[in-house]
Amino acid sequence: GRRRLQGVAVVHDLLVTLEEVFHGCTKHMKITRSRLNPDGRSLRTEDKVLNVVVKKGWKEGTKITFPREGDETPNNIPADVAFVLKDKKHPHYKRDGSNIIYTAKITLKEALCGCTVNVPTLDNRTMPLPCSDVIKPGAIRRLRGEGLPHAKTPSTRGDLVVEFQVVFPDRIPPQSKEIIKHSLAGC
Amino acid sequence: GRRRLQGVAVVHDLLVTLEEVFHGCTKHMKITRSRLNPDGRSLRTEDKVLNVVVKKGWKEGTKITFPREGDETPNNIPADVAFVLKDKKHPHYKRDGSNIIYTAKITLKEALCGCTVNVPTLDNRTMPLPCSDVIKPGAIRRLRGEGLPHAKTPSTRGDLVVEFQVVFPDRIPPQSKEIIKHSLAGC
Repeated sequence: GRRRLQGVAVVHDLLVTLEEVFHGCTKHMKITRSRLNPDGRSLRTEDKVLNVVVKKGWKEGTKITFPREGDETPNNIPADVAFVLKDKKHPHYKRDGSNIIYTAKITLKEALCGCTVNVPTLDNRTMPLPCSDVIKPGAIRRLRGEGLPHAKTPSTRGDLVVEFQVVFPDRIPPQSKEIIKHSLAGC
Repeated sequence: GRRRLQGVAVVHDLLVTLEEVFHGCTKHMKITRSRLNPDGRSLRTEDKVLNVVVKKGWKEGTKITFPREGDETPNNIPADVAFVLKDKKHPHYKRDGSNIIYTAKITLKEALCGCTVNVPTLDNRTMPLPCSDVIKPGAIRRLRGEGLPHAKTPSTRGDLVVEFQVVFPDRIPPQSKEIIKHSLAGC
Protein backbone atom coordinates (compact mmCIF):
# COMPACT_ATOMS: atom_id res chain seq x y z
CA GLY A 1 0.00 0.00 0.00
CA ARG A 2 0.88 3.66 -0.19
CA ARG A 3 2.77 5.18 2.72
CA ARG A 4 0.35 7.40 4.65
CA LEU A 5 1.56 10.29 6.75
CA GLN A 6 0.13 11.72 9.96
CA GLY A 7 -0.02 15.47 10.54
CA VAL A 8 0.93 17.17 13.80
CA ALA A 9 -1.57 16.97 16.64
CA VAL A 10 -4.38 19.53 16.79
CA VAL A 11 -4.06 21.13 20.24
CA HIS A 12 -6.93 22.83 22.08
CA ASP A 13 -6.92 24.68 25.40
CA LEU A 14 -9.05 23.03 28.06
CA LEU A 15 -10.14 25.70 30.51
CA VAL A 16 -10.89 24.43 34.01
CA THR A 17 -11.89 26.14 37.23
CA LEU A 18 -10.00 25.47 40.46
CA GLU A 19 -13.19 23.82 41.75
CA GLU A 20 -13.07 21.39 38.80
CA VAL A 21 -9.43 20.61 39.56
CA PHE A 22 -10.35 20.21 43.24
CA HIS A 23 -13.15 17.68 42.65
CA GLY A 24 -11.98 16.22 39.34
CA CYS A 25 -14.40 16.38 36.40
CA THR A 26 -15.23 15.20 32.90
CA LYS A 27 -15.43 17.86 30.20
CA HIS A 28 -17.45 17.09 27.09
CA MET A 29 -15.60 18.70 24.22
CA LYS A 30 -17.31 18.91 20.84
CA ILE A 31 -14.94 18.74 17.89
CA THR A 32 -15.71 19.04 14.20
CA ARG A 33 -13.72 16.89 11.81
CA SER A 34 -13.68 15.57 8.25
CA ARG A 35 -14.28 11.89 7.68
CA LEU A 36 -13.89 9.86 4.50
CA ASN A 37 -17.05 8.51 2.88
CA PRO A 38 -17.22 4.79 1.90
CA ASP A 39 -16.20 5.77 -1.65
CA GLY A 40 -12.73 6.43 -0.24
CA ARG A 41 -12.50 9.87 -1.87
CA SER A 42 -15.30 12.26 -0.91
CA LEU A 43 -15.42 13.77 2.58
CA ARG A 44 -18.16 14.56 5.06
CA THR A 45 -17.99 16.86 8.08
CA GLU A 46 -19.10 15.40 11.39
CA ASP A 47 -19.28 16.52 14.99
CA LYS A 48 -18.04 14.30 17.77
CA VAL A 49 -18.00 14.72 21.53
CA LEU A 50 -14.78 13.71 23.25
CA ASN A 51 -15.01 13.08 26.98
CA VAL A 52 -11.93 14.51 28.64
CA VAL A 53 -11.39 13.18 32.15
CA VAL A 54 -9.62 15.71 34.38
CA LYS A 55 -8.30 14.04 37.51
CA LYS A 56 -8.04 15.70 40.92
CA GLY A 57 -5.12 18.07 41.25
CA TRP A 58 -3.98 18.05 37.63
CA LYS A 59 -1.70 20.93 36.85
CA GLU A 60 -1.84 23.55 34.13
CA GLY A 61 -0.09 22.18 31.05
CA THR A 62 -1.29 18.58 31.52
CA LYS A 63 -1.97 17.14 28.04
CA ILE A 64 -4.66 14.63 27.20
CA THR A 65 -4.35 13.07 23.72
CA PHE A 66 -7.07 11.40 21.64
CA PRO A 67 -5.30 9.44 18.88
CA ARG A 68 -6.38 9.94 15.27
CA GLU A 69 -9.45 12.09 15.98
CA GLY A 70 -8.36 14.82 13.55
CA ASP A 71 -9.39 15.35 9.91
CA GLU A 72 -9.33 12.32 7.64
CA THR A 73 -8.30 12.65 3.97
CA PRO A 74 -7.81 10.02 1.25
CA ASN A 75 -4.04 10.04 1.80
CA ASN A 76 -3.39 10.71 5.47
CA ILE A 77 -3.64 9.11 8.84
CA PRO A 78 -5.85 11.49 10.88
CA ALA A 79 -3.83 13.65 13.28
CA ASP A 80 -4.20 13.27 17.04
CA VAL A 81 -6.40 15.71 18.91
CA ALA A 82 -4.97 16.94 22.22
CA PHE A 83 -6.25 19.09 25.06
CA VAL A 84 -3.97 21.06 27.32
CA LEU A 85 -5.19 22.05 30.77
CA LYS A 86 -5.38 25.76 31.46
CA ASP A 87 -6.59 27.36 34.69
CA LYS A 88 -9.49 29.77 34.50
CA LYS A 89 -9.01 32.94 36.50
CA HIS A 90 -10.57 32.50 39.93
CA PRO A 91 -12.33 35.33 41.78
CA HIS A 92 -10.61 34.49 45.12
CA TYR A 93 -7.47 32.48 44.56
CA LYS A 94 -4.28 32.33 42.58
CA ARG A 95 -2.86 28.85 42.05
CA ASP A 96 0.68 27.91 43.01
CA GLY A 97 1.09 24.21 42.25
CA SER A 98 -1.05 22.41 44.82
CA ASN A 99 -1.32 25.51 46.97
CA ILE A 100 -3.90 28.22 46.47
CA ILE A 101 -3.20 31.80 47.49
CA TYR A 102 -5.88 34.02 48.95
CA THR A 103 -5.18 37.74 49.34
CA ALA A 104 -6.83 39.11 52.49
CA LYS A 105 -7.24 42.87 52.39
CA ILE A 106 -7.26 44.30 55.90
CA THR A 107 -7.16 47.87 57.13
CA LEU A 108 -4.16 49.36 58.91
CA LYS A 109 -6.21 49.44 62.10
CA GLU A 110 -6.92 45.71 61.79
CA ALA A 111 -3.26 44.99 61.01
CA LEU A 112 -2.08 46.83 64.14
CA CYS A 113 -4.88 46.17 66.61
CA GLY A 114 -6.04 42.68 65.66
CA CYS A 115 -8.93 41.21 63.70
CA THR A 116 -10.48 37.98 62.50
CA VAL A 117 -10.30 37.35 58.77
CA ASN A 118 -12.96 35.13 57.21
CA VAL A 119 -11.17 32.98 54.66
CA PRO A 120 -13.30 31.32 51.97
CA THR A 121 -12.35 27.69 51.24
CA LEU A 122 -12.54 25.77 47.96
CA ASP A 123 -15.49 23.74 49.24
CA ASN A 124 -17.52 26.85 50.10
CA ARG A 125 -16.91 26.97 53.81
CA THR A 126 -15.59 30.03 55.64
CA MET A 127 -12.67 29.60 58.00
CA PRO A 128 -12.27 32.30 60.64
CA LEU A 129 -8.60 33.20 61.04
CA PRO A 130 -7.98 35.15 64.26
CA CYS A 131 -5.05 37.58 64.09
CA SER A 132 -3.96 39.12 67.37
CA ASP A 133 -0.31 39.93 66.58
CA VAL A 134 0.75 42.79 64.33
CA ILE A 135 0.30 41.77 60.69
CA LYS A 136 2.98 43.11 58.37
CA PRO A 137 2.20 43.84 54.71
CA GLY A 138 2.81 40.69 52.66
CA ALA A 139 2.76 38.43 55.73
CA ILE A 140 1.36 34.95 55.11
CA ARG A 141 -0.52 32.38 57.16
CA ARG A 142 -1.09 28.81 56.01
CA LEU A 143 -4.26 26.80 56.35
CA ARG A 144 -2.65 23.39 55.91
CA GLY A 145 -4.44 20.84 53.77
CA GLU A 146 -6.99 23.35 52.45
CA GLY A 147 -5.40 23.63 48.99
CA LEU A 148 -5.75 21.41 45.91
CA PRO A 149 -5.26 17.62 45.95
CA HIS A 150 -1.77 16.48 44.98
CA ALA A 151 -2.09 14.91 41.52
CA LYS A 152 -0.08 11.82 42.48
CA THR A 153 -1.62 11.30 45.93
CA PRO A 154 -5.06 12.92 45.72
CA SER A 155 -5.90 11.94 49.30
CA THR A 156 -3.45 14.60 50.48
CA ARG A 157 -3.80 18.30 49.71
CA GLY A 158 -1.70 21.44 49.47
CA ASP A 159 -2.27 24.54 51.56
CA LEU A 160 -4.50 27.55 51.40
CA VAL A 161 -2.01 30.37 51.78
CA VAL A 162 -3.45 33.60 53.14
CA GLU A 163 -1.40 36.61 52.07
CA PHE A 164 -2.18 39.88 53.81
CA GLN A 165 -2.49 43.18 52.04
CA VAL A 166 -2.62 46.11 54.45
CA VAL A 167 -4.70 49.04 53.22
CA PHE A 168 -3.48 52.36 54.60
CA PRO A 169 -5.77 55.36 55.12
CA ASP A 170 -5.28 58.19 52.62
CA ARG A 171 -4.80 60.68 55.44
CA ILE A 172 -4.77 60.91 59.21
CA PRO A 173 -5.94 64.06 61.04
CA PRO A 174 -3.09 66.01 62.70
CA GLN A 175 -4.32 65.42 66.27
CA SER A 176 -4.53 61.65 65.66
CA LYS A 177 -1.02 61.74 64.16
CA GLU A 178 0.34 63.18 67.39
CA ILE A 179 -1.35 60.50 69.48
CA ILE A 180 -0.17 57.69 67.18
CA LYS A 181 3.35 59.10 67.19
CA HIS A 182 3.49 58.82 70.96
CA SER A 183 1.84 55.40 71.03
CA LEU A 184 4.37 54.02 68.54
CA ALA A 185 7.35 55.77 70.16
CA GLY A 186 8.69 52.64 71.84
CA CYS A 187 7.92 50.20 69.01
CA GLY B 1 43.82 31.55 -2.71
CA ARG B 2 42.14 29.19 -0.29
CA ARG B 3 38.79 30.24 1.11
CA ARG B 4 39.30 31.22 4.76
CA LEU B 5 36.50 31.00 7.29
CA GLN B 6 35.81 33.17 10.30
CA GLY B 7 34.60 31.66 13.57
CA VAL B 8 31.81 33.09 15.72
CA ALA B 9 32.62 36.14 17.82
CA VAL B 10 34.18 35.64 21.24
CA VAL B 11 31.85 37.43 23.67
CA HIS B 12 32.88 38.75 27.08
CA ASP B 13 30.79 40.39 29.80
CA LEU B 14 31.79 43.97 30.51
CA LEU B 15 30.78 44.78 34.07
CA VAL B 16 30.11 48.45 34.74
CA THR B 17 28.92 50.36 37.78
CA LEU B 18 25.99 52.78 37.56
CA GLU B 19 28.49 55.56 38.27
CA GLU B 20 30.50 54.51 35.19
CA VAL B 21 27.32 54.54 33.11
CA PHE B 22 26.44 57.93 34.60
CA HIS B 23 29.77 59.60 33.74
CA GLY B 24 30.79 57.45 30.79
CA CYS B 25 34.16 55.66 30.97
CA THR B 26 36.84 53.76 29.11
CA LYS B 27 37.54 50.22 30.28
CA HIS B 28 40.92 48.69 29.46
CA MET B 29 40.29 45.03 28.76
CA LYS B 30 43.24 42.68 28.47
CA ILE B 31 42.69 39.78 26.09
CA THR B 32 44.97 36.87 25.31
CA ARG B 33 45.05 35.58 21.75
CA SER B 34 47.07 33.44 19.34
CA ARG B 35 48.88 35.11 16.49
CA LEU B 36 50.60 33.56 13.51
CA ASN B 37 54.38 33.82 13.34
CA PRO B 38 56.02 35.08 10.10
CA ASP B 39 56.59 31.43 9.06
CA GLY B 40 52.80 31.28 8.44
CA ARG B 41 52.41 28.06 10.45
CA SER B 42 53.62 28.30 14.07
CA LEU B 43 51.67 30.30 16.61
CA ARG B 44 52.56 32.62 19.48
CA THR B 45 50.36 33.76 22.35
CA GLU B 46 50.16 37.47 22.97
CA ASP B 47 48.32 39.82 25.30
CA LYS B 48 46.59 42.89 24.02
CA VAL B 49 44.67 45.66 25.75
CA LEU B 50 41.45 46.73 24.07
CA ASN B 51 40.06 50.10 25.08
CA VAL B 52 36.31 49.83 25.37
CA VAL B 53 34.57 53.19 25.38
CA VAL B 54 31.32 53.13 27.37
CA LYS B 55 29.22 56.17 26.60
CA LYS B 56 26.90 57.91 29.04
CA GLY B 57 23.67 56.09 29.66
CA TRP B 58 24.44 52.92 27.71
CA LYS B 59 22.08 50.12 28.60
CA GLU B 60 22.76 46.59 29.73
CA GLY B 61 23.16 44.39 26.65
CA THR B 62 24.93 47.03 24.55
CA LYS B 63 27.53 45.22 22.42
CA ILE B 64 30.89 46.65 21.42
CA THR B 65 32.72 44.65 18.72
CA PHE B 66 36.44 44.61 17.91
CA PRO B 67 36.79 43.00 14.47
CA ARG B 68 39.27 40.13 14.04
CA GLU B 69 40.90 40.36 17.47
CA GLY B 70 40.34 36.65 18.21
CA ASP B 71 42.77 33.72 17.74
CA GLU B 72 44.63 33.53 14.46
CA THR B 73 45.39 30.14 12.87
CA PRO B 74 47.00 29.27 9.54
CA ASN B 75 43.60 28.69 7.93
CA ASN B 76 41.14 31.05 9.53
CA ILE B 77 40.23 34.69 9.66
CA PRO B 78 40.43 35.63 13.36
CA ALA B 79 37.02 35.85 15.01
CA ASP B 80 35.67 39.16 16.29
CA VAL B 81 35.95 39.93 20.00
CA ALA B 82 32.86 41.51 21.52
CA PHE B 83 31.99 42.98 24.91
CA VAL B 84 28.46 43.07 26.23
CA LEU B 85 27.56 45.62 28.89
CA LYS B 86 26.34 44.21 32.17
CA ASP B 87 25.37 46.23 35.24
CA LYS B 88 27.20 45.56 38.47
CA LYS B 89 24.95 45.29 41.49
CA HIS B 90 24.74 48.68 43.19
CA PRO B 91 24.51 49.10 46.96
CA HIS B 92 21.72 51.73 46.72
CA TYR B 93 19.94 51.51 43.41
CA LYS B 94 18.29 49.15 40.99
CA ARG B 95 18.35 50.25 37.36
CA ASP B 96 15.22 50.55 35.25
CA GLY B 97 16.28 51.85 31.84
CA SER B 98 17.33 55.46 32.41
CA ASN B 99 15.65 55.55 35.80
CA ILE B 100 17.26 54.37 39.01
CA ILE B 101 15.16 53.04 41.86
CA TYR B 102 16.06 53.72 45.47
CA THR B 103 14.25 51.80 48.19
CA ALA B 104 13.69 54.00 51.24
CA LYS B 105 13.03 51.99 54.38
CA ILE B 106 10.93 53.98 56.81
CA THR B 107 9.25 52.96 60.03
CA LEU B 108 5.49 52.72 60.41
CA LYS B 109 5.59 55.77 62.66
CA GLU B 110 7.39 57.77 59.96
CA ALA B 111 4.94 56.52 57.31
CA LEU B 112 1.93 57.66 59.35
CA CYS B 113 3.22 60.74 61.13
CA GLY B 114 5.62 62.23 58.59
CA CYS B 115 9.39 62.30 58.12
CA THR B 116 12.17 63.54 55.88
CA VAL B 117 14.01 60.89 53.90
CA ASN B 118 17.60 61.61 52.87
CA VAL B 119 17.97 60.27 49.36
CA PRO B 120 21.52 59.63 48.07
CA THR B 121 22.10 60.78 44.47
CA LEU B 122 24.37 59.27 41.82
CA ASP B 123 26.78 62.21 42.16
CA ASN B 124 27.18 61.76 45.90
CA ARG B 125 24.84 64.46 47.08
CA THR B 126 22.00 63.87 49.54
CA MET B 127 18.55 65.19 48.67
CA PRO B 128 16.15 65.67 51.57
CA LEU B 129 12.67 64.48 50.64
CA PRO B 130 10.05 65.78 53.08
CA CYS B 131 7.02 63.50 53.50
CA SER B 132 4.08 64.94 55.40
CA ASP B 133 1.22 62.87 53.98
CA VAL B 134 0.65 59.23 54.86
CA ILE B 135 3.07 57.04 52.92
CA LYS B 136 1.60 53.72 51.79
CA PRO B 137 3.83 50.66 51.40
CA GLY B 138 5.20 50.58 47.85
CA ALA B 139 4.37 54.26 47.24
CA ILE B 140 6.81 56.07 44.96
CA ARG B 141 8.11 59.63 44.61
CA ARG B 142 10.15 60.83 41.65
CA LEU B 143 13.18 63.07 41.75
CA ARG B 144 13.03 64.14 38.12
CA GLY B 145 16.26 64.35 36.18
CA GLU B 146 18.32 62.62 38.90
CA GLY B 147 18.58 59.31 37.05
CA LEU B 148 20.99 58.16 34.31
CA PRO B 149 21.63 60.11 31.11
CA HIS B 150 19.52 59.01 28.16
CA ALA B 151 21.90 57.19 25.78
CA LYS B 152 20.62 59.09 22.71
CA THR B 153 20.40 62.53 24.34
CA PRO B 154 22.90 62.44 27.21
CA SER B 155 22.15 66.05 28.16
CA THR B 156 18.80 64.85 29.54
CA ARG B 157 18.43 62.33 32.33
CA GLY B 158 15.90 59.84 33.70
CA ASP B 159 14.48 59.97 37.21
CA LEU B 160 15.56 58.83 40.62
CA VAL B 161 12.51 56.88 41.76
CA VAL B 162 12.13 56.61 45.52
CA GLU B 163 10.13 53.53 46.47
CA PHE B 164 9.00 53.34 50.08
CA GLN B 165 9.19 50.22 52.17
CA VAL B 166 7.30 50.55 55.44
CA VAL B 167 8.79 48.57 58.30
CA PHE B 168 6.18 47.49 60.84
CA PRO B 169 6.98 46.91 64.52
CA ASP B 170 7.00 43.25 65.59
CA ARG B 171 4.54 43.98 68.35
CA ILE B 172 2.61 46.83 69.93
CA PRO B 173 1.79 46.87 73.66
CA PRO B 174 -1.94 46.30 74.43
CA GLN B 175 -2.50 49.78 75.89
CA SER B 176 -0.96 51.43 72.79
CA LYS B 177 -3.14 49.21 70.58
CA GLU B 178 -6.26 50.58 72.26
CA ILE B 179 -5.13 54.16 71.76
CA ILE B 180 -4.19 53.56 68.11
CA LYS B 181 -7.51 51.81 67.50
CA HIS B 182 -9.38 54.90 68.64
CA SER B 183 -7.08 57.28 66.77
CA LEU B 184 -7.59 55.37 63.51
CA ALA B 185 -11.31 54.85 64.04
CA GLY B 186 -12.37 57.52 61.57
CA CYS B 187 -9.67 56.82 58.95
